[in-house]
Amino acid sequence: MKQFDFEEERVKQEILKLGAKRVLIQFPEGLKPEAPRIAKIIEKFGVLPIISADPCYGACDVATDEAESLGVDLIIHYGHSKLVKYERVPTIYVEARATLNVNAAVEKALPMLEKWSKIGLATTVQHVQALDEAREILIHAGKTVVIGDTRRLNYPGQVIGCDYSNAISIAKDIEAFLFIGGGQFHALGVALSTSRPTIVVDPYDNTAFSINKEAEKIFKQRWASIEEAQKGRTFAVLVGLKPGQKRLVEASKVKDMLEEKGKTAYLFAVKEITPEVLMEFPTLDVFVNTACPRICLDDAVRFRKPVLTINEASVVVGKLSWEELCKRGLLES
Amino acid sequence: MKQFDFEEERVKQEILKLGAKRVLIQFPEGLKPEAPRIAKIIEKFGVLPIISADPCYGACDVATDEAESLGVDLIIHYGHSKLVKYERVPTIYVEARATLNVNAAVEKALPMLEKWSKIGLATTVQHVQALDEAREILIHAGKTVVIGDTRRLNYPGQVIGCDYSNAISIAKDIEAFLFIGGGQFHALGVALSTSRPTIVVDPYDNTAFSINKEAEKIFKQRWASIEEAQKGRTFAVLVGLKPGQKRLVEASKVKDMLEEKGKTAYLFAVKEITPEVLMEFPTLDVFVNTACPRICLDDAVRFRKPVLTINEASVVVGKLSWEELCKRGLLES
Repeated sequence: MKQFDFEEERVKQEILKLGAKRVLIQFPEGLKPEAPRIAKIIEKFGVLPIISADPCYGACDVATDEAESLGVDLIIHYGHSKLVKYERVPTIYVEARATLNVNAAVEKALPMLEKWSKIGLATTVQHVQALDEAREILIHAGKTVVIGDTRRLNYPGQVIGCDYSNAISIAKDIEAFLFIGGGQFHALGVALSTSRPTIVVDPYDNTAFSINKEAEKIFKQRWASIEEAQKGRTFAVLVGLKPGQKRLVEASKVKDMLEEKGKTAYLFAVKEITPEVLMEFPTLDVFVNTACPRICLDDAVRFRKPVLTINEASVVVGKLSWEELCKRGLLES
Repeated sequence: MKQFDFEEERVKQEILKLGAKRVLIQFPEGLKPEAPRIAKIIEKFGVLPIISADPCYGACDVATDEAESLGVDLIIHYGHSKLVKYERVPTIYVEARATLNVNAAVEKALPMLEKWSKIGLATTVQHVQALDEAREILIHAGKTVVIGDTRRLNYPGQVIGCDYSNAISIAKDIEAFLFIGGGQFHALGVALSTSRPTIVVDPYDNTAFSINKEAEKIFKQRWASIEEAQKGRTFAVLVGLKPGQKRLVEASKVKDMLEEKGKTAYLFAVKEITPEVLMEFPTLDVFVNTACPRICLDDAVRFRKPVLTINEASVVVGKLSWEELCKRGLLES
């Protein structure tokens, strides 16, 4: 996996600067196979590296509790940019920028953008450095290009799994999005948050494709889940235990909102929300998830019961209309 | 599930005594379906109950980090007796004693004990109150009865998933064990720890049966895993993150032991050890688990690579013989 910059020299300097003796290294699922190789490099800097093996889907999930529990001096978190502001344990973020060039794949996307002239650009942190060149290619092809920057994330045009504010902020000014990045996950987020046609440039496969059918399928599935939830009587409101996902106050409000409408509601605390975990509670009809909203949207077919976002729960009790929810974007929360 | 005593009155008194406003309630998997019902009872005592939904397989796994993170005043941990001595958050243990009578099932076991005269008794915390009557029935049938008490656990004759010291301490004095409790899990632990014939009395099904074939199968499977591990080059030593499972010093020693034998070894920190979590690291050949030993023994067929206990790793590097391991018991660690 030489396609990413693991910044060994900066990591070494930070370790030396802190005089760290024990470090916890954490990788998102896609980079986990690299963990043993990186651990051996870090061990040569004179520290004991411990690999965090639990699932990690974002910087919301930085392993602070684990680091404190293991008495480590430094967390090295790979693959995400900084999200949680307050650090109880010194943490460095290695964004794992892609080293490959995206231009050829962007060129492949041009025919798919033919019918639109105003294009919004969006990408993950791995490719923020490629946005300038991508814009040049689009401008050269006669397009007007807009890149959003709400300053909520670290870079203009950046999106993360649960935050598409940069894309949402420019949606009214553009006709379609060009998203640069691997896989469908983040591109789907753009489409679900903006309801705009979204073309994906995947530089790893050197391909370009539309994500609109997949987004349409999820919109339909969400509506079906809301309809099923409306028939439910007992609701569990899930409070996430990951550092950037804990929303106890909001969860309590959702519980109150449901009870006002005559539903029976419970608060559940949970770290990993999986079908197996929820199946242990067969008397519950509906789950409202105040932790990572992507679990509701991307994993719906794996769950046997409806798992809703906070806004979807508001639709269930009639406090928000489905149309308004679609306008705000399915991932707004 | 009226078969268990959930001690509502004691729970209420403890809540009032502490003036608790927010409590975290935690159940092992078998009792989780009861959680919503219990939560509603507790809510009537004037507190906000939060149900811990993550898996819980023992008192080693009391949700202290979660409780601190959620700012709760009290943890109510159901189904296990106290294990972790130091409490950062006030915790009460509701042992969920079984309310059913075990005598009829014990009578059913008598024909299976025919060829032995010295019988050891063992059980889980749910049935410790039934041991006296069971002993009377056995004595009446002409048996000599021994109940172990090493004072490591809370009650004479008690076993927990990973601690069979009470059974081991009397194994040399008896010919067979009679285990009282539901399912195979704890009974298997007795057989694997003592290599003694073990008859199970299951008061829920009102049945009695031998667990020896299942134990034999696991002994063979463990030897196969050790043989496969001997061919391995790269080893991950797993450090558990649950409060009663964290053994970083022992894990570091295992890493050193493996490296001395020319193996490449890594430390991994992990909360839930599942096949999915380990599959993210395809370059590893063998996992040595210093957390819950039951994961190695009971879930072996679910894992694609060998997952060994510390003692099994010692057999791999030639520091301990297989015969000595069997003598100590597969769960000793």
